[in-house]
Amino acid sequence: MSAYTPPLKDMQFVLRELAGIDKVAQLPGYEDASPDLVDSILEEAGKFAGGVLAPLNWSGDQEGASWKDKAVTMPAGFKAAYTQFAEAGWNGLSCDAAYGGQGLPKLVSAAVQEMWKASNMAFSLCPLLTLGAIEALHLSGSDQQKSTYLPNMIAGKWTGTMNLTEPQAGSDLAAIRSRAVPQGDGTYKIFGQKIFITYGDHDMAENIVHLVLARTPNAPEGVKGISLFVVPKFLVNADGSLGARNDAYCVSIEHKLGIHASPTCVMAFGDNGGAIGTMVGQENAGLKYMFIMMNAARFAVGLEGVALSERAYQHALAYAKERIQGRDIAGSAASVAIVHHPDIRRMLMQMKSLNEAMRALAYTVAAAHDAAARHPDEAERKRNQAYVDLMIPVVKGWLTETSNELTYLGVQIHGGMGFVEETGAAQHQRDARITTIYEGTTGIQANDLIGRKIAREGGATIKAVIGLMRQTEAELAQQPGAEFAVIKTALGKGITAVSEAADYIVANYGNDIRAVSVGAVPFLKLLGIVAGGWQMARAALVAQAKIAANDKDPFYPAKIATTRFYADHVLSTAAGLAHAVVHGGAGGMALDVAMF
Amino acid sequence: MSAYTPPLKDMQFVLRELAGIDKVAQLPGYEDASPDLVDSILEEAGKFAGGVLAPLNWSGDQEGASWKDKAVTMPAGFKAAYTQFAEAGWNGLSCDAAYGGQGLPKLVSAAVQEMWKASNMAFSLCPLLTLGAIEALHLSGSDQQKSTYLPNMIAGKWTGTMNLTEPQAGSDLAAIRSRAVPQGDGTYKIFGQKIFITYGDHDMAENIVHLVLARTPNAPEGVKGISLFVVPKFLVNADGSLGARNDAYCVSIEHKLGIHASPTCVMAFGDNGGAIGTMVGQENAGLKYMFIMMNAARFAVGLEGVALSERAYQHALAYAKERIQGRDIAGSAASVAIVHHPDIRRMLMQMKSLNEAMRALAYTVAAAHDAAARHPDEAERKRNQAYVDLMIPVVKGWLTETSNELTYLGVQIHGGMGFVEETGAAQHQRDARITTIYEGTTGIQANDLIGRKIAREGGATIKAVIGLMRQTEAELAQQPGAEFAVIKTALGKGITAVSEAADYIVANYGNDIRAVSVGAVPFLKLLGIVAGGWQMARAALVAQAKIAANDKDPFYPAKIATTRFYADHVLSTAAGLAHAVVHGGAGGMALDVAMF
Repeated sequence: MSAYTPPLKDMQFVLRELAGIDKVAQLPGYEDASPDLVDSILEEAGKFAGGVLAPLNWSGDQEGASWKDKAVTMPAGFKAAYTQFAEAGWNGLSCDAAYGGQGLPKLVSAAVQEMWKASNMAFSLCPLLTLGAIEALHLSGSDQQKSTYLPNMIAGKWTGTMNLTEPQAGSDLAAIRSRAVPQGDGTYKIFGQKIFITYGDHDMAENIVHLVLARTPNAPEGVKGISLFVVPKFLVNADGSLGARNDAYCVSIEHKLGIHASPTCVMAFGDNGGAIGTMVGQENAGLKYMFIMMNAARFAVGLEGVALSERAYQHALAYAKERIQGRDIAGSAASVAIVHHPDIRRMLMQMKSLNEAMRALAYTVAAAHDAAARHPDEAERKRNQAYVDLMIPVVKGWLTETSNELTYLGVQIHGGMGFVEETGAAQHQRDARITTIYEGTTGIQANDLIGRKIAREGGATIKAVIGLMRQTEAELAQQPGAEFAVIKTALGKGITAVSEAADYIVANYGNDIRAVSVGAVPFLKLLGIVAGGWQMARAALVAQAKIAANDKDPFYPAKIATTRFYADHVLSTAAGLAHAVVHGGAGGMALDVAMF
Repeated sequence: MSAYTPPLKDMQFVLRELAGIDKVAQLPGYEDASPDLVDSILEEAGKFAGGVLAPLNWSGDQEGASWKDKAVTMPAGFKAAYTQFAEAGWNGLSCDAAYGGQGLPKLVSAAVQEMWKASNMAFSLCPLLTLGAIEALHLSGSDQQKSTYLPNMIAGKWTGTMNLTEPQAGSDLAAIRSRAVPQGDGTYKIFGQKIFITYGDHDMAENIVHLVLARTPNAPEGVKGISLFVVPKFLVNADGSLGARNDAYCVSIEHKLGIHASPTCVMAFGDNGGAIGTMVGQENAGLKYMFIMMNAARFAVGLEGVALSERAYQHALAYAKERIQGRDIAGSAASVAIVHHPDIRRMLMQMKSLNEAMRALAYTVAAAHDAAARHPDEAERKRNQAYVDLMIPVVKGWLTETSNELTYLGVQIHGGMGFVEETGAAQHQRDARITTIYEGTTGIQANDLIGRKIAREGGATIKAVIGLMRQTEAELAQQPGAEFAVIKTALGKGITAVSEAADYIVANYGNDIRAVSVGAVPFLKLLGIVAGGWQMARAALVAQAKIAANDKDPFYPAKIATTRFYADHVLSTAAGLAHAVVHGGAGGMALDVAMF
């Protein structure tokens, strides 16, 4: 229904001017990622996203994945698109070249992934889960496991899944009950039911490599007794060919609010004698391996937030330019396109400014990830890793919460047509709804943020980040013009709000964890809004320098105007959020459960 | 799926202590509405809502209304429920006794309507539209039209529809093209297509009375050339029996995001020679009649906001008490119900406090409506009408926007289960999505608020309301305890925010209508939040007086704690919204359309 045109101009601006692709390309092993190569990758990815994946987005939603006789059939066109996707090598963009990947930086793959997610979120989940499984095997698998699975997975011939959740074990993986029984030959038989398994079955690839959390006999209770197993749909023979069908079946799929084309499976392992698998890494260390991957998965879900918001924005903008309805509020002879109505304009600016802020925040975190992994200086690696660790829950939580607000606005701009499924506007809102839930709800992210990432280290990293933000504020103060005065004041107040709220968290987390935790999500949103505003301010400074150097590209004044809007309409909410964090804890827990 | 228990305790508290049911019962014609009678009406309505309508909510959503051969079939159980509903006399609760209604105040019908909407929003739209048509005929119809239609409509034997929208005429009714050709015998033949017609066809009643906007030949262009016609599905013979099938057919229904059981029809009038109708009231005055009804319809949609939020709250609360997952954040031996987790508690408190604020605001506006209609003192009627006129767009806009946020939280509390349709949590969010769109989008409401309701009268009414709010603030200052200090400060800041924003609107609407209009929706939300906070503060004062009088009902301390939460988490957003209104206009319109 709606077209998707990757926002290449803004992507390239963020990559070059804010995230420092040039510096990333100087890191050992990333020398190939020259700006020119990156440009051509983005352009090709954009063609594939807009030309192949986007046209299947709405039809995939309407048809949905279907299930029959323990097997999932994908909607029309998905298998062919996936084959094209794999054959073009897109699956292995960021993977180890030793196993057939292209070894490009996370910064580049972040921009490319945004395109997959924006053009067809349901499709994009299949390679996303495969990447997660690749990463787990790459980090923790044996040489034999790596050579057995990685080349075909990186090539996209086989896909991967993550089997964590069980009915009684959602956010709390300590409650996992699936069992792994050693067979004495190095293999295990796996028994148990897993739910919410994305792409647990489908017909797009030859094999599916399930990574499964389960307990060995006599394993300790709780999270310290969970091991990780690799359980392929088809066993793999010694020569690499496919062997017998394993005892791992999709026994039903969920009827969901969104991402209808992405099969969400109930997986039964071992109902017919036991599913054969091998252990990945050390016994009882499964959760640790999962947590290592978790940052990547959470970052990727955060990207879904900006991706869906961008798609919804493009969809709504096209409608707003085309739909003629009502006179201009200041008077007009004839009816005008609704894009001229101030409230429509406000909603479009809200979407545009937040999309740009989210993208800038996500990509700069991706660049920090690359530096944390590859920088030759250990202190730089540590500094970047601390920033990434702090920001992952914000990228995951804030981008996804914001995408729910913005896809909502996309429907609103469509008026009555937005409520009619045929328009496709509602799909973006439905698809976005899962993003604040899976890979850890916003509440889980926020608890991680205030606990592990702030209180535990006495706020060291966030204080350093606040220092960097203050430097940007000082640069804003040097600029001429009313717009920069507005941006400077708003960012300054935002930083103060973050600072006060962070101080409160550090001071009180130890003695009143419940009250502080009531403010966890408000704090996560506050930090997201201000960190996004910081990146927008950096963008406005770059734009100002370009204008001062006589660059006539209208992109630059637009970036400044967009940042100013963000200051007035988004950063202005910071103080209220800080108030909820600092003062809202006691009231949050005041009522007895019986009083609800 | 989920049960619905009407919140009778809070409803009765608001009716008695905040909305003054005793004073409404002193108005001429409302003498029967004694507190005891009202209590028994609410109790009976609650039984019907919880016992008959609520069980059909999810099944109706899953099955949906279906269309075949120009006729709509309702989901299983709807026809029987509607028959029961009509036979019990619920349809005519607020209608003129002269035509068989019960003539009860709007304040009472508001509480009862909340129950229909909460228990089964899709069902409730049928009587809602019928009431709208009844009101239009009652206000503007001829004696013959009234005697022909009103008794059967009030009895619920016939239902009604409102046919306004056409493909090119949504928010802008000036663009209506449907034609009405006089036949020389007092009747007209109607030709044209209408879209988004709620319950345009169904199988629950014997006849459907369509009210249709159309143009007579040579009518002036624009809104001044629109007349209103009554066009029944079956013509009515002189003896009141049903005659020939009229040329008004449902030619398709929409596939929508929500309210699946409510058929949204494309209606074709006159495709087979002309649909026969008669004119209601004066020629070319159709829009005026619609606008008279509009306040009632907008108020009713606002009620949908609190109703759906209440249902979502009950649904989420039940799940939060039942779902065991994770340890208490402050430590616990075993896993606990998620209601104990601070972020879940915050979301439940957000829902509870806003629901109570929305209900209090809506019911007090309903009471003002009754006083505006019936008070013996003309000055009181005028004062109340001005308050109602000011607050209708707020009730419509703020309650519905808030319900979208709160039904979203209802899904969030369910975690992954919220995304699975089987749970039913997502239905509330899907159903709520239409409420900010139909009967005028939030943008339309907000433009009405800042233009006709504030700027045009120089802010006279809102200044009077601000004066009343300040009185409540002064009363808060008299109360002991930290909670009241918090509430007083937050309400005071909120009132200041409203006051500053209103002053800005009054001062600038005439000279920069575009910039002021960028802030229209932020202002509407601001006024809603503060007006809701004002009612919560009044509630807390009543509760405090009860406690001081040694009343041990735990409802009262809970009301104070809930108000305090609202102060910290909701009123705290007021200053940010005022900032967007006062400072955000220029930035909102700064970008050329071409720059998007």
